[in-house]
Formats: sequence, structure tokens, C-alpha cells
Amino acid sequence: MSKIDAFRYDGSNKFSAKKADTKIDDWYTDDADYAARLREQATEIDALQTRMYADNRYGVLAIFQAMDAAGKDGTIQHVFTGTNPMGLRVYSFKRPTEQELDHDWLWRTYLNLPERGTIGIFNRSYYEEVLVVKVHPDILTKSQRIPADLTADLDKVWKHRYDAIVDMEKHLARNGFLTIKFFLNVSKKEQADRLIARIEDPEKNWKFEEQDVEEREYWAEYQKAFEEAINETASKNSPWYVIPADDKKNMRLIVGRVLIEEMKKLNIGDVKPDEARFQALQKLIPKLKA
Amino acid sequence: MSKIDAFRYDGSNKFSAKKADTKIDDWYTDDADYAARLREQATEIDALQTRMYADNRYGVLAIFQAMDAAGKDGTIQHVFTGTNPMGLRVYSFKRPTEQELDHDWLWRTYLNLPERGTIGIFNRSYYEEVLVVKVHPDILTKSQRIPADLTADLDKVWKHRYDAIVDMEKHLARNGFLTIKFFLNVSKKEQADRLIARIEDPEKNWKFEEQDVEEREYWAEYQKAFEEAINETASKNSPWYVIPADDKKNMRLIVGRVLIEEMKKLNIGDVKPDEARFQALQKLIPKLKA
Repeated sequence: MSKIDAFRYDGSNKFSAKKADTKIDDWYTDDADYAARLREQATEIDALQTRMYADNRYGVLAIFQAMDAAGKDGTIQHVFTGTNPMGLRVYSFKRPTEQELDHDWLWRTYLNLPERGTIGIFNRSYYEEVLVVKVHPDILTKSQRIPADLTADLDKVWKHRYDAIVDMEKHLARNGFLTIKFFLNVSKKEQADRLIARIEDPEKNWKFEEQDVEEREYWAEYQKAFEEAINETASKNSPWYVIPADDKKNMRLIVGRVLIEEMKKLNIGDVKPDEARFQALQKLIPKLKA
Repeated sequence: MSKIDAFRYDGSNKFSAKKADTKIDDWYTDDADYAARLREQATEIDALQTRMYADNRYGVLAIFQAMDAAGKDGTIQHVFTGTNPMGLRVYSFKRPTEQELDHDWLWRTYLNLPERGTIGIFNRSYYEEVLVVKVHPDILTKSQRIPADLTADLDKVWKHRYDAIVDMEKHLARNGFLTIKFFLNVSKKEQADRLIARIEDPEKNWKFEEQDVEEREYWAEYQKAFEEAINETASKNSPWYVIPADDKKNMRLIVGRVLIEEMKKLNIGDVKPDEARFQALQKLIPKLKA
């Protein structure tokens, strides 16, 4: 059994928000050890990404979801600094634009899917549609302008959204795109500490939003929404990983390890061509020398 | 029973390419009668479209698929000339670009879906993925670069593609977007006559492509692909209409009528607001006069 399996949800096991760890024993001994492991990991990710880029058939979509201040931005920064940016693109899902609201809720996802050979990172994602929208369902008819007769039965709405997500991820898998979903699982106590730090430290003030404090009051609703979303959409093709997030460094090492092990499962071809192609190429050398 | 029901496939009846009419009794008596009916129809479509635009919650996607020279371009031209172009957009699916091939085959569809309040017309569509690609399956691994291990079982590939289409159309319906699919059904003999006309008439030469003659050799394969695609993807939410196409004028009248009857089924609100909103608006007049 791999070290990462403890965090994996692929439909064969149930995720319980109450039981899941927000803190585990560290994967590193001290800061120097952490830095060395992170560097080594970055090299490995970059090498896998390079092979995928040369092969040009597979693609990876890595999704990061979490409560506020769980460490999404920092994790993306530290895990992927060191990966060739040519084969990497981060897309942050902000409040939808008017143009995006003029379409169905999956539209902006499609616009921003990664290309073959590349890793696409979603900082938040279409999962917000069954998280924040589920906690604040008036969004459906108000900003999203979905006809009210189509949203009368809310349970059905969420069921349909889970289905649409599962269908899309299945479609992507069948076309060579792997979706890996990370839930960075922070405790309510640790979140409070981090929000306080953002208020006390003027250099962190820019990261603080009053709304984060308001949304904390819906903690239980969000936890329930995460639990349901993860259980309804976890699959072998598109697994969820629930990462203990109370220790940021540890979280980054786990996330990187998951990515490496998942990418290794893809049937990415060798960068080197077969012998015939290699020999054919050699014959071009005299022409180039002439 | 409505006049258009004879052409409708919504999953409750099987479509047989062999049995379907390519020619029926005309819906018009002479050219003048045709022109009058077409005008009347255009006015009706424009009025429905205007209401939908004001309501701004529903959208319509009208898809046109057919063998070459069946009359897609002309039908779109004649049925929709007279509709406010602000709420209408035609997108023609051509050979996919390199950027499109870098994504899954549904990607470019999402990019070009209609906005709420508008009619989007697809001249060809994602159905090509189970038509031309099915007739020429080497496209899958060659231009589409899907990993070969994911395309080894071709029957599965088409089944997965039908599923992905059904899933997407269901998702769109649940979010307020109606998909209507037209198969303009021309006979092999009529197609030959039209291709000959394109060769003989220098003014029509620009429409002729040598490839159309080559593709004619796959007539039976295409008919089979259409039959399967229609039967696998016809649903109450997203019906197919198989329109006899050997008489172009008649075809246009039927297509327009289908569109009108389908749009009337949408629960589009009255352009006029409720009494309270109307009264509230009246109170702004003194301010404007002051």
C-alpha cells in the first residue's frame, strides 16, 4: 500500500468530514529536510511533465478546493515552482463574470481546460457550484438566472450537478485527461489562527477579506457540502485526495507525492522514438552536413 | 397531433434511414405562397426570439447536420433572415484547428454555445464526432491524438461519445438551454444532381469540393452512422427532427415550423412585468420630468 492511499477517495470508500485528519505525523524531520524533499519532488514533477509534453497525448487537471485560508495559493506556489511553465497553467476561479453567467455553469471550465501534454491547475473550480452555491442557493435564480421551474427541487439540482461533473470527468478521462481533486482539509481552529494572522500582520492584510469571517458561520454547512460532493464525485478515473492542511509544509509534500504517483500511472510513451524512427532520423544528418 | 410530429424523434420511436422520406407533399402551393409563408414564419421566429431575449433565462441551440449538398447553408439563410441578429449567432464547424485538437472533442462546442436569451445555430456540430470520425476512425489517434489504448475498442468509443453528447445536452436542458437537432435528409440521387449543378454552373463552382465526390462512396456508412447517432441521442429534452430535404423550399418551411413550436414550449415569461414592478417604474417618471 502506498503512503498516499490513506488520503485517496475513489468511490470505494466513504469520506467523513468528521473523521478525516487535519493533522498527521510530519513527512519531514526539520526545515532543511523539508526543503530538500520539496526540491527533489519538484524535479520529479518537472521530469514527468516534460515526458507528457513530448508525448503530447495525455493531459492533467489538478483541482484545489478548500475552506478559506487552508493554503491553496501557497500549495500551488510551492509544489509547482520548478515545473517548466510552458507546460503548466494555473487558472483561478473568481466570482463569475457577466459573460460567464450568460452560459451554463460548466462553460467557463471548458474554456480553461488544459491542453494535451500540459498540467492545468484549477485554484477553486466547478466544484464551487456544489459548495458555495449549495450553501447559498439563492445564487441559482439570482445571479445564474436559471429558470425557477428548473430549480424548484434543490435536491435534484445538486444531484444533477454531481451527475454533470461525473459525466464531464469521465469524458475527459476517456479522451486522455486525468482529473485529480485535492481537498485541503484545515481545522476550524487553525483557520481562525490564520485569519487572525492576516489581520495582525500588515503584510498579510491584502489576503484578508471580511467575507471570510462571515462564511465561517456556515462552517458546518460547508463541511457537509464537501462531504457530499466528494462522496458523489469520487471515482477511480478522477479521485479525490483529502489532505491534512493544518501543517502547510506537510500538505505540500503530500500533494506533490500524489501528483507524481498519479502521473506515473498514465501510459505516457518514452520520449525516445522506436528504433526505425531513430534510424530514419540519422539519415538526415549527411544532408544537414552537406 | 401536430404537423411536425411526423419528423420528430425523441427516443420513443426508432429512426430508420431506409424508411424515412426525403420527399413529401409540399406545404406550399406555388412560389408566391412559399414566400408569404416564409415571411410569416420569420416574423414569428423573431417575435419569440425577442421575448426570449427580454426574459434572458432560456437559450436555444439549433443544430444542422446532413450529407453534403443537402441544403444546410441555404436553410439557415432563409429561415433566419428576418431574425434580429443581436440575439442570433451562427457557428460553422470546420476542420478543427490545432488548438482545438489540443483539447477533448467537446471543447470547441462549449466555446461556441449560445448565451442565455439567444439562439445559437451550429452548421455541423459535435455530431461530426460520431459521423465523419466514425466513417474514418483513424482520425481518433492521428489528428485527435487520443492515446491508442483508449481507442482500442471502437464500439466503446462511439458508445462513450453518444453518452457524452446525451450527458451534455441533458446538462444544458437542466440549465435552461434547449437543443434541437435537424437532420436534413437528402436522397443520393438528389445529391448527385446538386453536385453536378455545382460543377456545371460557374457561379456555384465555389461550393464544390472534390472531396464531396469521394465521400459519396461512403454513403451507406454515413446513413448507418446517422441512424445510430439519431437513435442513440434522441430524447424528449433534445429531440431530433429528420426533415425531407429533396425540396429545399419545403424543407425550410418545416424547419421554421419546428423551431417555432419547440420555442413555444419553453416557459418564457411575458415581456411585460408584474403589476407591482410596473407601478414602481411609473414612480420614476416625475423624477425624469423634474
